[in-house]
Amino acid sequence: MNKSLSLLASSIIFSSSLYAQTAPKNIIYMIGDGMGPAYTTAYRYFMDDANTKVVEPTVFDSILVGMAHTYPDDDTVVTDSAAGATALSTGTKSYNGAIAVDTHKKPLTTMLEIAKQKNMTTGLVATSQINHATPASFASHNESRRNYDEIANDYIDNKIEGKLPADLMLGGGTKYFIREDRNLVDEFKAAGYSYSDNLAALDKLEKLPALGLFAPVGLPFAIDENPNRLEKMTKKSLSLLDKHKDNGFFVMIEGSQIDWCGHANDIACAMSEMHDFANAIKVAKQYVDKNPDTLLVITADHSTGGLTLGANGQYRWERDIIKGVSASAETIAKKMLESEDLETIWTQSTSLPFEKSTKLLLEQAKSKGNKTLAQVIKSRISEASFTGWTTSGHTAIDVPVFAYGQGAEQFIGSQNNTAIADKLISFIKQ
Amino acid sequence: MNKSLSLLASSIIFSSSLYAQTAPKNIIYMIGDGMGPAYTTAYRYFMDDANTKVVEPTVFDSILVGMAHTYPDDDTVVTDSAAGATALSTGTKSYNGAIAVDTHKKPLTTMLEIAKQKNMTTGLVATSQINHATPASFASHNESRRNYDEIANDYIDNKIEGKLPADLMLGGGTKYFIREDRNLVDEFKAAGYSYSDNLAALDKLEKLPALGLFAPVGLPFAIDENPNRLEKMTKKSLSLLDKHKDNGFFVMIEGSQIDWCGHANDIACAMSEMHDFANAIKVAKQYVDKNPDTLLVITADHSTGGLTLGANGQYRWERDIIKGVSASAETIAKKMLESEDLETIWTQSTSLPFEKSTKLLLEQAKSKGNKTLAQVIKSRISEASFTGWTTSGHTAIDVPVFAYGQGAEQFIGSQNNTAIADKLISFIKQ
Ligand SMILES: [Zn+2]
Ligand SMILES: [Zn+2]
Repeated sequence: MNKSLSLLASSIIFSSSLYAQTAPKNIIYMIGDGMGPAYTTAYRYFMDDANTKVVEPTVFDSILVGMAHTYPDDDTVVTDSAAGATALSTGTKSYNGAIAVDTHKKPLTTMLEIAKQKNMTTGLVATSQINHATPASFASHNESRRNYDEIANDYIDNKIEGKLPADLMLGGGTKYFIREDRNLVDEFKAAGYSYSDNLAALDKLEKLPALGLFAPVGLPFAIDENPNRLEKMTKKSLSLLDKHKDNGFFVMIEGSQIDWCGHANDIACAMSEMHDFANAIKVAKQYVDKNPDTLLVITADHSTGGLTLGANGQYRWERDIIKGVSASAETIAKKMLESEDLETIWTQSTSLPFEKSTKLLLEQAKSKGNKTLAQVIKSRISEASFTGWTTSGHTAIDVPVFAYGQGAEQFIGSQNNTAIADKLISFIKQ
Repeated sequence: MNKSLSLLASSIIFSSSLYAQTAPKNIIYMIGDGMGPAYTTAYRYFMDDANTKVVEPTVFDSILVGMAHTYPDDDTVVTDSAAGATALSTGTKSYNGAIAVDTHKKPLTTMLEIAKQKNMTTGLVATSQINHATPASFASHNESRRNYDEIANDYIDNKIEGKLPADLMLGGGTKYFIREDRNLVDEFKAAGYSYSDNLAALDKLEKLPALGLFAPVGLPFAIDENPNRLEKMTKKSLSLLDKHKDNGFFVMIEGSQIDWCGHANDIACAMSEMHDFANAIKVAKQYVDKNPDTLLVITADHSTGGLTLGANGQYRWERDIIKGVSASAETIAKKMLESEDLETIWTQSTSLPFEKSTKLLLEQAKSKGNKTLAQVIKSRISEASFTGWTTSGHTAIDVPVFAYGQGAEQFIGSQNNTAIADKLISFIKQ
């Protein structure tokens, strides 16, 4: 038994009997969008120190407690992010596309709203636009995740006993918040919110309530720019929330783009997102170590892409090839479209040889545009690293559940995703 | 929290502090060969009662406690069954192909051998030949899993303080035990073993030691014949071991062919194997309920096939199509090769329409023989059900860990596969 597990076991033994009496004061809820078990496994082998015989456990390994079932209340067992987040935020399963509404499109009360009713300080952090499906399902209600403008409006229109739902929002989304018909940033400022649109100047956000929108839509991929943006936002959000925790705080922090790289079937992109998410988790874990009345719970809404480690009959997964990739396939393709020298870009962006067959495929694809070109680049990297994919969409595999801190033992075992929400809501209500 | 989880939590709370003092008396160790998390998830949706709104939890869900890392000590992170079983039986990782030997091909003491040293009663049960990689790694030592004859010899030559390693062996393998050069069945009889080669007359095996070999190599697939053969062998083995438990017993029970269906990328075949394994687990769980000094631990050696629930961009996994399949693709192909009437066989063996395109593909494939024909049949079922596969081999994804009974709480969390063995060995040594 490693040290972390032994600590977990100790915490189970010593804190279980306290459960009925003492709910955690603060809750940090982290969601790795699309982060199925192949992603947490891949990340361990991706990070392995080649100089040691063992494969080092990751921060995920130190706090795994169970798994969750992700099926929606729909005519399929494969969920989308909206139904997944609705289950995780309200404890009720709904149809794919639903943002905190039930199958009759009636609003469902979210745990963030209950926290606000209880006068807790509340926050939402994401690397997507902050009005994307996962954060949206905590602070707004809509029959469709596609209604981005309406969802953004809800963040200021959806009053909880006269108060705005989220005291802190960090992510992307200026496109949706600063519009011709309505300037929500001005409205938030008028409501007393600090505002920043500069991630580099994140330190200057010094008090709550606060809104930070650092990109028109989602933030750039970690592999392309700002590899530690979620870690930074997590650090900032916990330091701000810590100053306003008289009645405790609730924050949902999403690693949004693990899913996006998964949809793209871009393994190097996915591993960079996992790394940023893992580092954000380390920050949250350290917060719990200093504030043991805090509970950290982490899960995923579903898995994406049908990722497998090993493919095409080969008993191998070559993480060094993935480590050799320095940009998303989308970005490599963009560079190639702007240049005549495919070889230099290929050699700068990957550690793979520029073989004749690769050259031919890239040249053919270039004439068909960015999407086809990116497809060829990704296929080459997946083939060489024996990374398998079965879909551009989601899959129904159970997702891992992690917990640490006060009440963590409640999440041991196999559970419905709604049960995670039920337990957190019961803590918040206490 | 469901009832089982709540029971698990209670058992954690109440039994953890006893751990240091009291090891379980009996150990039932079950291995689902190739049973990665996609298989246990698939099985839940496969078994779902369509008449209820919820998806019913399975026996796996009731006792999940963690996950395990399966990488071997080799130049890859993807294990084979031999290295996987060696890690699970000895606590030491080795190279792919190794049967309870280390990377220098030196024998490693297995937990079954330690149990025998401790005068416990020991057993091995499998649906493969009993000298296949997984059972082999508990009672024999060989530099290669392919040396089937040598491994079978070891079951009688490998003396533990003068005693044979396994008091009970149930599985397939007459081809390896009754040979021109050596008749091991006669040798076992001479050593006092009861012998049976008739699964239908399993009841007549009334005392230990005993050997049962019910097929030349592996038993037929559950979907083709004897769907409950592992459940039956499990019931029989526990009733025999129960009579000889003065010093406790250790038994390893393998659902061997989940892996074989996975290699074949045959989802209906895999679900039938999962069902037999799940029913065997129910039998073991009931034994623990009646004998609370017993520990049941279940895991997999790796996942197989790169199975995904959902494929090709579709957010669907159609279990009804899989439920409609009544034979393995191998058997359907065999029938088609012996008949002119493909339509009748297709319609009897699947619930899919006999479309023109299907007809054409089958006719073309038939001229190329059984393997190609089976391939077309499986592809059609996978496509129609949105089942994804990425390989005919194994993948590196972490596998689920289940535990129930005395000491179960020791297996909570994320752990190396060797750590599972280490904990069991420490129990056996107590
Ligand atoms: Zn998602
Ligand atoms: Zn195996």
